[in-house]
Amino acid sequence: MILSDSPESPVFPLRDMLGFSIEHGQGVGATELVVDERHMNPNGVVHGAVPYAMVDTAMGAATMSVLEDGLLCATIEIHVRYLRPCAGGTLRAKATVRKAGRRIVHLDATVVDADGTEVVAASGTFAVIRPR
Amino acid sequence: MILSDSPESPVFPLRDMLGFSIEHGQGVGATELVVDERHMNPNGVVHGAVPYAMVDTAMGAATMSVLEDGLLCATIEIHVRYLRPCAGGTLRAKATVRKAGRRIVHLDATVVDADGTEVVAASGTFAVIRPR
Amino acid sequence: MILSDSPESPVFPLRDMLGFSIEHGQGVGATELVVDERHMNPNGVVHGAVPYAMVDTAMGAATMSVLEDGLLCATIEIHVRYLRPCAGGTLRAKATVRKAGRRIVHLDATVVDADGTEVVAASGTFAVIRPR
Amino acid sequence: MILSDSPESPVFPLRDMLGFSIEHGQGVGATELVVDERHMNPNGVVHGAVPYAMVDTAMGAATMSVLEDGLLCATIEIHVRYLRPCAGGTLRAKATVRKAGRRIVHLDATVVDADGTEVVAASGTFAVIRPR
Repeated sequence: MILSDSPESPVFPLRDMLGFSIEHGQGVGATELVVDERHMNPNGVVHGAVPYAMVDTAMGAATMSVLEDGLLCATIEIHVRYLRPCAGGTLRAKATVRKAGRRIVHLDATVVDADGTEVVAASGTFAVIRPR
Repeated sequence: MILSDSPESPVFPLRDMLGFSIEHGQGVGATELVVDERHMNPNGVVHGAVPYAMVDTAMGAATMSVLEDGLLCATIEIHVRYLRPCAGGTLRAKATVRKAGRRIVHLDATVVDADGTEVVAASGTFAVIRPR
Repeated sequence: MILSDSPESPVFPLRDMLGFSIEHGQGVGATELVVDERHMNPNGVVHGAVPYAMVDTAMGAATMSVLEDGLLCATIEIHVRYLRPCAGGTLRAKATVRKAGRRIVHLDATVVDADGTEVVAASGTFAVIRPR
Repeated sequence: MILSDSPESPVFPLRDMLGFSIEHGQGVGATELVVDERHMNPNGVVHGAVPYAMVDTAMGAATMSVLEDGLLCATIEIHVRYLRPCAGGTLRAKATVRKAGRRIVHLDATVVDADGTEVVAASGTFAVIRPR
C-alpha cells in the first residue's frame, strides 16, 4: 500500500479541529490522530465520534481513489462497532474498498490503537456522485 | 417529553470542542448544535461525524435515563444513514429507547435541520455496564 | 394505509416455501406468516432468517410502490436487530419508505408477534434499477 | 481451519427446509447450500434471505465454538450487504469471530458463489446467554 497526502483537500475544517491527518492509495484510505484531552468523554475514554470521524474520512479517501476524475462521493450509511474502549495514544484508521460499482462503493475499515489492537471495526456504503 | 440539562456531565471535552448541548428525559436524549465553519467538509457541507457525535451522545443520554443509579453504558454499535446533505444552521438530534433490557439497550435516533427536515436516521445498541 | 395483494408477483418460490403473504400500499409493504415447525431453530424459537425474509420482502414491496412503472429495485444493505425471541404464532412485518431518492430508497421495518409486541426492528437501503 | 459437522444440532427444521449444511471450527462457522428453484425471487435471482440464513447460522456456529460448555447465544444484530446478485450454483458462507468478550461476541461473514466471488458481506453481534 502506497499512501500519499491528499493535496486536493487543502481546506478541511473538521479535520483541522479534530487534528487528524489523511493519506490514500489505490483503493485504500488512512487517517491518523494523536488523542489528547479534547477528544474525551466525561468518563475519560475517547468519544466514539473521534474514531468515527477517522473512519468516515478514510472511507471517503479510499472511495475517491477509485473514482474517475471529476466524480465525487457521499456517505450513504456507515455501521460502526466498538470492540474495545480506547484511553489514548495514537489511533490509526484504515479503510479498504471491498467492491467498487459504477454507482455504489462498498468499504470496510478498522481503527487500531498504538499497540495495533483493534478498537473499532466498520463497514460503509458510498454513493458515486456525477456533478452535472 | 420533559428534557433537562445533564448536570452529571460537567466535564465533557468533545462536547465543548464541537459545541453542542445535551438534554435528556425519561427514555430520550437530545443534542443541539449550531453549525459553523469548523464543522465543515472540504466540499462545504457538514462532515458526517458532526451529526454522528450528536447521535451517539444523545443515545448515551437516553440510555442513562433508563438505568438504575450507579450503572454505566457503552456503545456496542451504531448504524447511521445519511438521508440528505446538510449545509448549515441548527441541528437537533433526538434519541429514543426502543427496548431496554437488563444488559442491552436498543435505541433509534434522528437528526433534523432548522426546517425540521431529517438529515440523518440512526439505530444503536448500548451495553449496560455494572461497575464492580 | 391501504394495502393490496401484489398480483405482479405471481411466481415467488421463496415466499411459497416459507409460506408468507405480501401486501403493499403507497410507500408501505407488509408481509404476514403463521409460524410452524419448519421455521424453527434447534433451540425451539423462530430462526432469525424468517423475520428477515419478511422484512426484506416487505421493504422490496414498499420500494416498488414508490417507483415509476418499469423500474426495479435491489437490496443494498439491511440492518436487523432482534429485540425479543419469538416462539410462534402469527408474525407481521411492516416496512415504510423513509426517503425515496432518485437512485436510493431508505426504509424502516418492524416485525410484531400476535400480541403486537415488536420482535424485530430493521433499516434498509435499496437501489433503484433502470433496466436498459 | 478444521471444520466439523455439528452433531449437537440434530433437529434444525429451518436448515432442513432451506437445505444447507453446517460446519464449525475454533472461532469459525460455515454453511453451504446448493441453490435450486425454491430459493428464488420473482425476478429469478436468489432471495436475499437465503444467504442471510446461511450467514446468521454460520455466525451462530462460530460463536458457539468459542463459548464454554453450557452457554448459549442469541443474535443481537446483523448488518448484511449485498455486493452482487446471485443467480445460482453452490453458495458458501463463512463466519469468523472478530472479538469474543464475556458477554458479547463480534463476528464477520462473507458468502461466496461457486466461482469464489463474494456476493454478500456481513457483520454481526451475538449475546452470550448463561442459562439459569
